[in-house]
Amino acid sequence: MNKEELFQEIQKKHSFLCIGLDTDIRKIPLFLKENSEDPIFDFNKAIIDATQHLCVAYNLNLAFYEGMGSFGMKSLEKTVFYLQQNYPEHFVIADAKRSDMGSPAQQYAKSFFEHLKVDALTVSPYMGSDSVQASLQYPNKWTILLALTSNERHEDFQMMQDANGEYLYERVLRISKSWADDEQMMYVVDAAKAQMLERIRLIVPNHFLLIPGIDLEEGVLEEVAQYGLNRQCGLLVSVSERILYADDTEAFAMRASEEAERIRRQMSDLLYQHKLIDSLQTLTLD
Amino acid sequence: MNKEELFQEIQKKHSFLCIGLDTDIRKIPLFLKENSEDPIFDFNKAIIDATQHLCVAYNLNLAFYEGMGSFGMKSLEKTVFYLQQNYPEHFVIADAKRSDMGSPAQQYAKSFFEHLKVDALTVSPYMGSDSVQASLQYPNKWTILLALTSNERHEDFQMMQDANGEYLYERVLRISKSWADDEQMMYVVDAAKAQMLERIRLIVPNHFLLIPGIDLEEGVLEEVAQYGLNRQCGLLVSVSERILYADDTEAFAMRASEEAERIRRQMSDLLYQHKLIDSLQTLTLD
Repeated sequence: MNKEELFQEIQKKHSFLCIGLDTDIRKIPLFLKENSEDPIFDFNKAIIDATQHLCVAYNLNLAFYEGMGSFGMKSLEKTVFYLQQNYPEHFVIADAKRSDMGSPAQQYAKSFFEHLKVDALTVSPYMGSDSVQASLQYPNKWTILLALTSNERHEDFQMMQDANGEYLYERVLRISKSWADDEQMMYVVDAAKAQMLERIRLIVPNHFLLIPGIDLEEGVLEEVAQYGLNRQCGLLVSVSERILYADDTEAFAMRASEEAERIRRQMSDLLYQHKLIDSLQTLTLD
Repeated sequence: MNKEELFQEIQKKHSFLCIGLDTDIRKIPLFLKENSEDPIFDFNKAIIDATQHLCVAYNLNLAFYEGMGSFGMKSLEKTVFYLQQNYPEHFVIADAKRSDMGSPAQQYAKSFFEHLKVDALTVSPYMGSDSVQASLQYPNKWTILLALTSNERHEDFQMMQDANGEYLYERVLRISKSWADDEQMMYVVDAAKAQMLERIRLIVPNHFLLIPGIDLEEGVLEEVAQYGLNRQCGLLVSVSERILYADDTEAFAMRASEEAERIRRQMSDLLYQHKLIDSLQTLTLD
């Protein structure tokens, strides 16, 4: 999927929501665990069916699937193939945070882009440009580079400053944007401090940013939109637990859908305010 | 395996060699591909049987196995279990270069330490201490943090300097050594420039260092030993292609063994010169 197609999906659905399928066997409804042969996949399938009209992307953190061994990897494959067969208009992200070089990097790219056929792969930048060169060989596939992550101790290294006051995460943005353009690269950016988003947009005005783990209660989405939106939206806001685990009864998928719709409606307002859609009237989705 | 046990193995075998099982289906002997149902595992098994008395560790880069899908992951599991059942004295490293935090990081630790039961996991430091906390909960299991990698473009970020002249890779060493001691942490360090190893030993005098991809022809091993050895050896030198692919006929395992023995003999001399073993006489290995 290219950038223009992604933007069209955002305009069509009035949504820049990405749902994180961080599916944790310990958290899914008990009845599923008792009655399903593959509760992880069945849970994902129900969530997808209930939310696909409200989001433009799904993000699968590999850790949750690898943690279940080869059985988990099978659930991952089934989930991705289910998405591709039924909802091919969605942008699918393998949140693997891989980092390697040369031949191993080629193997990872092959695994994710040729075998799994996801649209995007998250990559840790520590090893430098060698870690993304292999992925960039695939047209219409995306590398999403970690820049400013949302975990507490991101400051250990990402906030290191050089003699000119440039932070490491800013250096990652500045240097890596010469490796490929905004048709193949995105960045993971924590938006808890909206001021940082303003600085980030000075360096990468046109790139899409994948925003994880924001607190949606506190008007943060408005700030994220204010500082982060660009002419093609340029934002994917990833939400996981509050949608996935909104309920632990048989109504879990319906409650997930309600939660996603609540977020989508906020996004619709923001897209309209920022003149990225023409009306608040959602198109009829088939 | 703890540090003292690893040092004892090094003294017993007169070797600090780690063999990298970067097994690439495109490079293994044709006859294996034609006659084996699991050529990756059969190749690894033959290499292990032929070299286990010459090395103290095996390093498995996950990329080569993931690149083959769930079939490759099965070969990986079989290789690790084969090592554990037959040669439990070896230190087994999953070179996964993972990086995540919180719940996903726990899933990775569980996957590698509880399911695969490897001794060590390589981790990228970009996200800070959150990315290793989960692994550190496992006693006698090791986190090997990327510090100075051997790829060409490591300088993109690892050589960033702060206002005091400290490089990012030095900051990674300095800060991370407060997260855990040298009984749970090691570092990936490129030793192509031996002077850097001298600087690194000022920061982490007692830690084990995993040294990848050095050129063994040029007297580099002597320099690595000179600047890198400490009182408990403190070095694992990883060699892969020149051992694995020394030959592509049915004699591949024998030739791999000869190559490993040539390296082990150099290591034996160096351990003796640096007074880490008492004689050059190798103990009889059963």
